Amino acid sequence: MDAQAASDFERILEADAAFVEHFLDEALDGRTRGGEIARPTRLVAAMRHGVLNGGKRLRPFLVLETAALFGGNRDAALRVAGALECVHCYSLIHDDLPAMDDDDMRRGQPTVHKAFNEAAAILAGDSLLTYAFDLIAGEGTDLPAAHKLALVAGLARAAGMGGMAGGQALDLEAEASRPDEAGIIRLQAMKTGALIRYACEAGAIVAGAPDRDRETLAEFGAAIGLAFQLADDLLDETSSAEVMGKATGKDAGAGKATLVALHGQDWARRQLDGLAAQAEDLLEPFGEQAAILRAASRFIVSRRR
Amino acid sequence: MDAQAASDFERILEADAAFVEHFLDEALDGRTRGGEIARPTRLVAAMRHGVLNGGKRLRPFLVLETAALFGGNRDAALRVAGALECVHCYSLIHDDLPAMDDDDMRRGQPTVHKAFNEAAAILAGDSLLTYAFDLIAGEGTDLPAAHKLALVAGLARAAGMGGMAGGQALDLEAEASRPDEAGIIRLQAMKTGALIRYACEAGAIVAGAPDRDRETLAEFGAAIGLAFQLADDLLDETSSAEVMGKATGKDAGAGKATLVALHGQDWARRQLDGLAAQAEDLLEPFGEQAAILRAASRFIVSRRR
Repeated sequence: MDAQAASDFERILEADAAFVEHFLDEALDGRTRGGEIARPTRLVAAMRHGVLNGGKRLRPFLVLETAALFGGNRDAALRVAGALECVHCYSLIHDDLPAMDDDDMRRGQPTVHKAFNEAAAILAGDSLLTYAFDLIAGEGTDLPAAHKLALVAGLARAAGMGGMAGGQALDLEAEASRPDEAGIIRLQAMKTGALIRYACEAGAIVAGAPDRDRETLAEFGAAIGLAFQLADDLLDETSSAEVMGKATGKDAGAGKATLVALHGQDWARRQLDGLAAQAEDLLEPFGEQAAILRAASRFIVSRRR
Repeated sequence: MDAQAASDFERILEADAAFVEHFLDEALDGRTRGGEIARPTRLVAAMRHGVLNGGKRLRPFLVLETAALFGGNRDAALRVAGALECVHCYSLIHDDLPAMDDDDMRRGQPTVHKAFNEAAAILAGDSLLTYAFDLIAGEGTDLPAAHKLALVAGLARAAGMGGMAGGQALDLEAEASRPDEAGIIRLQAMKTGALIRYACEAGAIVAGAPDRDRETLAEFGAAIGLAFQLADDLLDETSSAEVMGKATGKDAGAGKATLVALHGQDWARRQLDGLAAQAEDLLEPFGEQAAILRAASRFIVSRRR
């Protein structure tokens, strides 16, 4: 991609990440807020370990920049972005558990069940998921009630049995069930795609964008979500643990069906180009205003880790 | 308690339980509804195993009967009651995991991780928690947006780090930290109390009851929630696994601090009488209309299993 656009994008991605990181650091500070009950110190520490880990914050970025595209309230967008990151981090904490993907390291740090213990990791994940709905529905989010409800219902659907959690359940069965191509696409659309799709749609909801634009952004999110997973599978085959900060080559090792395993790396790269083009087409009506989302789509397609 | 009131209460408790069981059976039927993505069969089966188990459905009963006290919409109350039961059942599924309380049996049946496996139990719990917010916020719940938001935020707070999940985290630490009486009361108010308190408050919110009545019902819920936990601790010392359908005597065996262990069984029974009197006082303004809630409070104090 064009060097200037790439450097603008990286600067904004980093700024948004710092913005969200600061918000989550304050929100999860372990002190009592308003209620009579103090927060359990160790639980909050485990939640912080799972959240404040220097992630790229791609999903919050998508919420913030989609909301900005439609002139949405940035404070409200930040709370929704923070909520979505809580859900993403809960899913990583639970996915890393020994009974699930059994990973000891995440972004170069011990995973929550390694740094604390399994019970703390289960409860930290549960609490982050629950807190996400508190963040959106709570009085602190200055949006019309109807928009907040659409955000709550949308998040629950994207994260639940018909979305992320359902996709993870299918993924755990995939070694035994050996899904076909349609099965893999469905699984990935649920496991990774649903939350990225929601991130883009949520920004449009925060800003009160018209239904048609909201639907277009959801489609954009679905396209880059699929690209994200494809790039991830490609990286799993081609990259090293050192670069990724987590174990790689696990899918092939486990004999897990991915589109890359099915069709090869060249096919995957062509597919990524196609998804990037599709994403750009969807942004066409928004012109220059959507430059940052366009750069995000190119970043996802070409990312090296 | 008066024999007629007791028999009326048991009849209504059973009818409400059947009503909620039927609703959840339909809601979690594993078939696709509206969306393009089918639900993952095995995940839904694990969720059903954890939910459709013939429980007493005390929390849903409290939502339904508190809503009825204020003339609330019974269909909307049912969806909120079902959502609350999903949250309660998620907590049981996760609490039963080997890394937590490590229980193999629940209501005379194998727990979800025994009937399926640990990964399925983690994801089934996650999905039930998530689905609860979908149920309340979704279009199917015919309530004003402001009421739905209050229900979502209230549930998130009752279930999260400052409520049920936080209480479970403190409980897991209690063997090592040996909390004092105030610590135990706080822990129990979070772990068991918060959700029962919310059940009563939620019924008032569903019905759009005035703030003062809503607060009174929340206090009633807090009193019977405390009584519920005290009765549970008493039963853990005095009852058998055969009657309870789950392991008993675990608290004493683990050297876990409970108010019963601290003050003895006679003190606990006097305390229960005091809480029952407090609960009845709170219902006094509602007269005969609150007879069923009054009977519920007596049931909780005197329950044998």
